[in-house]
Amino acid sequence: MKLSRYKHDSCFSYTLGATLSYELLKTSPELIRRAYLRPNIKHGDDLVEILNKLRQRRISITESTKAFNVLNAKDNCLLIVEFIKPSTLLDHAKNQPHIVLVNPSDAGNLGTIMRTAVAFDYRNIAIITPAVDPYHPKTIRASMGAIFHLNIALYKTFNEYSQSIINSRRLYSFMLNSDAQTLESTTQPDSNYSLIFGNEASGLPSDFANSTKPIYIPQSSNVDSLNLSIAVGIALHHFKSHS
Amino acid sequence: MKLSRYKHDSCFSYTLGATLSYELLKTSPELIRRAYLRPNIKHGDDLVEILNKLRQRRISITESTKAFNVLNAKDNCLLIVEFIKPSTLLDHAKNQPHIVLVNPSDAGNLGTIMRTAVAFDYRNIAIITPAVDPYHPKTIRASMGAIFHLNIALYKTFNEYSQSIINSRRLYSFMLNSDAQTLESTTQPDSNYSLIFGNEASGLPSDFANSTKPIYIPQSSNVDSLNLSIAVGIALHHFKSHS
Repeated sequence: MKLSRYKHDSCFSYTLGATLSYELLKTSPELIRRAYLRPNIKHGDDLVEILNKLRQRRISITESTKAFNVLNAKDNCLLIVEFIKPSTLLDHAKNQPHIVLVNPSDAGNLGTIMRTAVAFDYRNIAIITPAVDPYHPKTIRASMGAIFHLNIALYKTFNEYSQSIINSRRLYSFMLNSDAQTLESTTQPDSNYSLIFGNEASGLPSDFANSTKPIYIPQSSNVDSLNLSIAVGIALHHFKSHS
Repeated sequence: MKLSRYKHDSCFSYTLGATLSYELLKTSPELIRRAYLRPNIKHGDDLVEILNKLRQRRISITESTKAFNVLNAKDNCLLIVEFIKPSTLLDHAKNQPHIVLVNPSDAGNLGTIMRTAVAFDYRNIAIITPAVDPYHPKTIRASMGAIFHLNIALYKTFNEYSQSIINSRRLYSFMLNSDAQTLESTTQPDSNYSLIFGNEASGLPSDFANSTKPIYIPQSSNVDSLNLSIAVGIALHHFKSHS
């Protein structure tokens, strides 16, 4: 089978490196299609363990440098695993908060947000397109494997997301507008809520304030805004410790 | 004068781009040595304004593509400003909290931490070496110019930092150890404190718990840890809203 550079519309993606591949193997082994091993390297204990687990599942392991070149892997990347991108649905149960990202554009930010979400036991991320590809190998790497613990669903518009909501839930929009209620004065009695964040450069359109509850993280006028992943981190931590 | 690639031990660094250069010009114009302008480009209003301000200060502006190549600037970078790296001291006044970063290794994280610090009105960052260079053009870019609003001081050891403290202050160490007191139960009556964070991969050595107050941000065991800049963001926000 032919290996090609990762494409957004491909059914497959790749974990670059043993640690990420191990996370995939632990959480979603059924998605794995095959593995590529860098030839002529000394196998440490961790790598031996992963290779044994792959063999137990009868997954083909090809020794080839080509895969590492095609996928632009770094020299210290010894293992690549190809897997089927899962098609997941959000969990709409009442105790499952959602994170909604409107047009996120940076793979590093999106991966870091996934990692932070899992750290605070959030399980569901809605992404409103156009957006950076959540299954791009760069996003997966930035997530440090957290992506395999999450339900991730893409929507064409915010409206499409809000119409998909099954149980009613409170929608909170994070705005750069200091007229909004401050995060500190927002405490959440039940866990049925969605936290909505805009694009890195432009934030959320002001009309989100009409259909959702706008929230503001107080900050100095000496910076344009917080980095998106920092704002999400502060919000997730606040809602988890006040719910 | 010869322009060379940025070096850690150089007295000079560079702002790549008009927005960063404008931030430098607004906060620390006395540091500016000269500017390089990409030749044969259309000047937008913002760029015209910056160029006028540079000319008012009699700063030499050279049209040259070479500077952009030597400094590896992106195509959309139209202006580079060379400036003297300031030698700043921390403010030890009683209402000035410090952020102490022990061996931070990633330019993107350090820049994001600077941006978050300024957003929450922190003005002082101590960096314990070895560490990524705070004045590397990549760090400056990630800080979005916040670096020019900060006092940044380097120390060879944590001991050197703690001996430099003038007024007594409470030292809080962020540990990955869940035996420590949680962040949520930590409220700060006065603002005379330092928040101490370890390296991205290794965290703080456990002996920090002996000489400082250890703190823990509760998080799921499904991730190794929070990203460093996220942990700092959550901590700064918490201390600002509880002090």
